[in-house]
Amino acid sequence: MSGKQDCEIAALAALARQASFAVAGLSETVKNGALNAMAAALEKEADSIIAANRRDLTAARRTKLPAAMLDRLALDRRRVKEMSDSLRAVAALPDPVGRVISAWQRPNGLWIHKVRVPIGVVAIIYESRPNVAADCIGLCFKSGNSVILRGGSEALRSSLRIYSVLKEALRVRGIPEGAVNMVSTADRRAVEKLLKMNDFIDVVIPRGGEGLIRYVTENSLIPVIKHYKGICHVYVDEFADLNMAERVCYNAKVQRPGVCNAMECMLVHEDIAGRFLPGMAKLFRAAGVELRACEKARAIVKTAVKASEKDYRTEYLDLKLSVKVVGGVDEAAAHINEYGSHHSDAIVTENYANALIFLRRVDSACVYVNASTRFTDGYQFGMGAEIGISTDKLHARGPMALEELTTYKYMVFGNGQVRE
Amino acid sequence: MSGKQDCEIAALAALARQASFAVAGLSETVKNGALNAMAAALEKEADSIIAANRRDLTAARRTKLPAAMLDRLALDRRRVKEMSDSLRAVAALPDPVGRVISAWQRPNGLWIHKVRVPIGVVAIIYESRPNVAADCIGLCFKSGNSVILRGGSEALRSSLRIYSVLKEALRVRGIPEGAVNMVSTADRRAVEKLLKMNDFIDVVIPRGGEGLIRYVTENSLIPVIKHYKGICHVYVDEFADLNMAERVCYNAKVQRPGVCNAMECMLVHEDIAGRFLPGMAKLFRAAGVELRACEKARAIVKTAVKASEKDYRTEYLDLKLSVKVVGGVDEAAAHINEYGSHHSDAIVTENYANALIFLRRVDSACVYVNASTRFTDGYQFGMGAEIGISTDKLHARGPMALEELTTYKYMVFGNGQVRE
Repeated sequence: MSGKQDCEIAALAALARQASFAVAGLSETVKNGALNAMAAALEKEADSIIAANRRDLTAARRTKLPAAMLDRLALDRRRVKEMSDSLRAVAALPDPVGRVISAWQRPNGLWIHKVRVPIGVVAIIYESRPNVAADCIGLCFKSGNSVILRGGSEALRSSLRIYSVLKEALRVRGIPEGAVNMVSTADRRAVEKLLKMNDFIDVVIPRGGEGLIRYVTENSLIPVIKHYKGICHVYVDEFADLNMAERVCYNAKVQRPGVCNAMECMLVHEDIAGRFLPGMAKLFRAAGVELRACEKARAIVKTAVKASEKDYRTEYLDLKLSVKVVGGVDEAAAHINEYGSHHSDAIVTENYANALIFLRRVDSACVYVNASTRFTDGYQFGMGAEIGISTDKLHARGPMALEELTTYKYMVFGNGQVRE
Repeated sequence: MSGKQDCEIAALAALARQASFAVAGLSETVKNGALNAMAAALEKEADSIIAANRRDLTAARRTKLPAAMLDRLALDRRRVKEMSDSLRAVAALPDPVGRVISAWQRPNGLWIHKVRVPIGVVAIIYESRPNVAADCIGLCFKSGNSVILRGGSEALRSSLRIYSVLKEALRVRGIPEGAVNMVSTADRRAVEKLLKMNDFIDVVIPRGGEGLIRYVTENSLIPVIKHYKGICHVYVDEFADLNMAERVCYNAKVQRPGVCNAMECMLVHEDIAGRFLPGMAKLFRAAGVELRACEKARAIVKTAVKASEKDYRTEYLDLKLSVKVVGGVDEAAAHINEYGSHHSDAIVTENYANALIFLRRVDSACVYVNASTRFTDGYQFGMGAEIGISTDKLHARGPMALEELTTYKYMVFGNGQVRE
């Protein structure tokens, strides 16, 4: 990257920081008005957005992008409408800024308030569909943050067009220019420069695969909240209702295999494996799921291929499933903590003690009893939105929405107190 | 560092991770018993701790450590007693683990609990007094975390002795060995290795000066919560009660100048500077405070030396103070956000609107109206303990105690729910 581009990234980050103070002070009414205006602008400019997207698609076909990724990239009127609906939905959500988390008075009369405030400047680096731009701008703006976006290069033209439309809608309403920003070069060194702007950017949220996450973690001077892979498990306990277990496992694997909260490994108690696995395997086979199993499971399901150590650490995002027979809830929890990605894991059981052991021992963002891991999602959790699912433990864990895009500060009201 | 030492650091981190699952599951009763046993052990072993400390002091005198630092390093029976009192105080605090932060039911019947859990493995790298070892072990243990400590080399013998005594007290009560750990080499490359152990360590808390913080931030693959400098301000507004302003500013600067929540820069409204500064300067002069002031302030206080741009960005930790005359609350807030360290800042005013503007606009962990910045402290805030003061925005901001050493997970209770 040229020195000029270097300076452009620095200038953009500085502008975002400067604007963040103004954005943090906007009233909820002003923010909601701007969100609705952005939604209307997207609908008005649907044709130009779709035209930009067509150019992305043409380029992507030339580079032989797989059909599934072409589908994720493609925009039509319905998908543009979904983006604007999503902005209106964010407008309708309560503003977390200014909420008093707790407040108390000290013996000396000091009155301490712990108050939600915006984080400041949020950078989001993603490898995903163009609609992510609109979603992230909406959520960061509503939570009072400036945002810097850097999307995947294959969706660059679509993302830039969406960004320009939203930015113009904000400009018309007098929102400072630095409130929303996009890094418009496909050059990856722009990301490297961005990750050194720790004087201006408060947090980086990378959303994507191993390469991106590793790159950001190793190069960032800015705190990172990773949105990483989901190697999710369902453990079918010896005390499971086997019909329920069948429904839960089928849903967790098959309903949408390409997402991070889908099951990648099924653990089955040895005492019920003989009764449970044959029927379950038949259902999976009918759905086109390939099973990769341990020796004990293969003794029951002959058609399963042999699972390697690596399989248990793999996020397939596909109609593939590892299967392992275990001796009980302790071994299941130990396997999950060792091989999983601390995302979402479930037990199916009617046994009270085993349910509690699983909930306590499994070190994951979301742990379920008798439900599909597919519920790990901001909307399904009732947050009304989602900017991603944190696989980190600090600041935010699991689904992240508006509240997770804020921090707090202490406002202390005194009347002349000094320390003895 | 040798390959052997490299392996030792890796083994220590792996041991800490393994133990963390057991520590996370200890009941509050067991933890409190162990904390009280550690307190008793410190008192019983006071002589051997003081003897180890004497060897540190001898070595430190040889390297001509300044008298103030020698004083911070020295341990006597009273200071050992303070350490054990502090452990007993932590035992008496409520355990944050298992607390339900919030819980709600979804329309499909899923019952979602957001529950406090330990972070896992906490590494603390500090440049400070030997008592920090006991404090950190107590707080991390009570909050259900494994801890890895790495203290300053000048206190190494004292820290190691304290650590051994506490570890033995835990061993006797059957607590797993990996629950508390100390890096026992003075070699800084051990820290470098530690900072790459992101598979085993969940968070690094560096406490210290610019060199340490920069080193950790640039080298860590583990999330960092910085405990960095305090360039704290008091802004004396045009509507201040000038007697109160005098008391607050004097306390913020003079009561204990060597700590991070002491005032380093005083901002004074131009309309009251002529009335306020002469008396204030006289008080500061009597206390031995050197003033470094802007031109407008020097026109009033002739004895003040000229402040440089660099002075406004300096944490003196000493009887020195920058002084600047400003045009109002907006300029004060802008100066603080630009030159400060986002730690603790105060306004003295009787004006309602200016108080609110200051509270909202100043982007610091703690913002005060009519009180000394010296109150930024876990004990003063009523948390009953303090592991440090975070100058970061993510996860924890301001004073950190037990709750800030936890994260959360979602426990979801279902009865067979699957996603449509």
